[in-house]
Amino acid sequence: MTFLSGLSAFPITPADASGRVDVVTLRQLVGRLASAGVDSIGLLGSTGIYMYLSRAERRRALEAALEEVAGRTPAIAGIGALRTDEAVRLAQDAKAIGAAAGLLSAASYLPLSEDEVFEHFSTVARESNLPIVIYDNPGTTHFQFTPDLVARLAKVPGIAAIKNPGWDPESTGKLLADQRAIVPPGFSIGCSSDWTATETMIAGADIWYSVLGGLLTDVCLRIVRAAQRGDAGEARRLNREIAPIWDLFRQYSSFRTVYALADLLGLCHVEPPRPILPLPEEAKHQIAAQLAKLTTQTHPAG
Amino acid sequence: MTFLSGLSAFPITPADASGRVDVVTLRQLVGRLASAGVDSIGLLGSTGIYMYLSRAERRRALEAALEEVAGRTPAIAGIGALRTDEAVRLAQDAKAIGAAAGLLSAASYLPLSEDEVFEHFSTVARESNLPIVIYDNPGTTHFQFTPDLVARLAKVPGIAAIKNPGWDPESTGKLLADQRAIVPPGFSIGCSSDWTATETMIAGADIWYSVLGGLLTDVCLRIVRAAQRGDAGEARRLNREIAPIWDLFRQYSSFRTVYALADLLGLCHVEPPRPILPLPEEAKHQIAAQLAKLTTQTHPAG
Repeated sequence: MTFLSGLSAFPITPADASGRVDVVTLRQLVGRLASAGVDSIGLLGSTGIYMYLSRAERRRALEAALEEVAGRTPAIAGIGALRTDEAVRLAQDAKAIGAAAGLLSAASYLPLSEDEVFEHFSTVARESNLPIVIYDNPGTTHFQFTPDLVARLAKVPGIAAIKNPGWDPESTGKLLADQRAIVPPGFSIGCSSDWTATETMIAGADIWYSVLGGLLTDVCLRIVRAAQRGDAGEARRLNREIAPIWDLFRQYSSFRTVYALADLLGLCHVEPPRPILPLPEEAKHQIAAQLAKLTTQTHPAG
Repeated sequence: MTFLSGLSAFPITPADASGRVDVVTLRQLVGRLASAGVDSIGLLGSTGIYMYLSRAERRRALEAALEEVAGRTPAIAGIGALRTDEAVRLAQDAKAIGAAAGLLSAASYLPLSEDEVFEHFSTVARESNLPIVIYDNPGTTHFQFTPDLVARLAKVPGIAAIKNPGWDPESTGKLLADQRAIVPPGFSIGCSSDWTATETMIAGADIWYSVLGGLLTDVCLRIVRAAQRGDAGEARRLNREIAPIWDLFRQYSSFRTVYALADLLGLCHVEPPRPILPLPEEAKHQIAAQLAKLTTQTHPAG
């Protein structure tokens, strides 16, 4: 799965108050990412509100996005659901529409055991034939993937990669080496929590699943390319430049911040699905001020 | 809301592997509860797999159950959903079908702020006109209701009650008094986590939202009646008799245990929705052994 490397950019899925996807705006967001040269596009991730959209709307979003991309960039599609049979159907939809892989979380209502998560993931991989990225996101799912479970899942045919939660920069090298030691060769190890990703990429992770990459694509791509060619200094320098954005992500969550950023950048003017509220005006002003500093300093939006 | 007192019994919602509700068996489960004289029936609670059923199936379940009950017992219906507009529609459905109240959780995917939960609950109450029971269940939702938020919500027209998570028997009196002090007179305070409920009822809670009450109804009803007439000794004696069941609930979760119990009692033979797996045979044997001891000791099933 060579495409499971580099920068995977995760755009917002613009949708109206009733959960209907605005496919025109989605195509603009996605087209921009393909033109920028990202290595893959992550559709219907957490930023892409996958858990808040019906199966029909998820399908509409994927169809529109993949038509827009027209084979230029592989797409990874969020296929998580509370029921296993639903996740299977979403994976089958994604495969039929042309996604290159499925991003599967352990989203749950009742807390799940390791065996239950193992069966859930194995069933989806087996019944969809879609390459699966394990989406480890304890901040939303409250499920903890142990190294044992990751090792078991990584042996399942069709389970190809893992998107890890943010790793503390101090321990990222060790965590990465530990995980590398328990997964088969070629299994792709990825990072998220944007503010920690640069160090994890420098340490040798394969792929950065990036929220900011869906909006301020250029700087994220330059960080990834610097890390890939071993230029840790340049990767860190760029990362420091956008540190104010990481502060906002930590303060307001990346999800809430990118909705405000997308609006400020003129890329899409939508609100998140209720019950999630738009950020208050004060927070938006703060985000606008940080963005203005950045854009005058270093690079244009995108 | 005088019906928001006493024993509220929460049955399983039997459904097949595709999430289709078996309304014939549901009617049997519910009819049994109405005949036993419970104060209310809690349909589509966590035990009733509300988060794993489509809107259409939730409606089918409610219609069948309310037809079976035929006005004998008020019904409280689970109306939780990840999207606010969905929860509104589910509440409107429950109201139209004849539920007396809606049980609304803070189930979420993205972690919610207090303001977001406040808006979610207020919107559902306002747009449905269904009396709302706040369903505080951090074990599944990972949201913590603070006393401040409970006080704010209890003032919203239509928000009538709270179903609290289990309270440590040592502090239940203080927690109950603290909550009583911040809610309006007549606001119903309820308990759950069956193994803690007897002490909370003795301390003066209004209602026990009971998982075991959906199966071993008689003993739960006798505990509630003893607590209501101030006979703490008898309530505690009965509670001690079923302590082995509480051990099973703590070990395997009440949800997983009642699926096995319902099967052993011959009341319904279904598996939980995947990804939740049936308990292993060893656990079922353990449950069967405890149940056999109980039924020879004290009371017949039901």
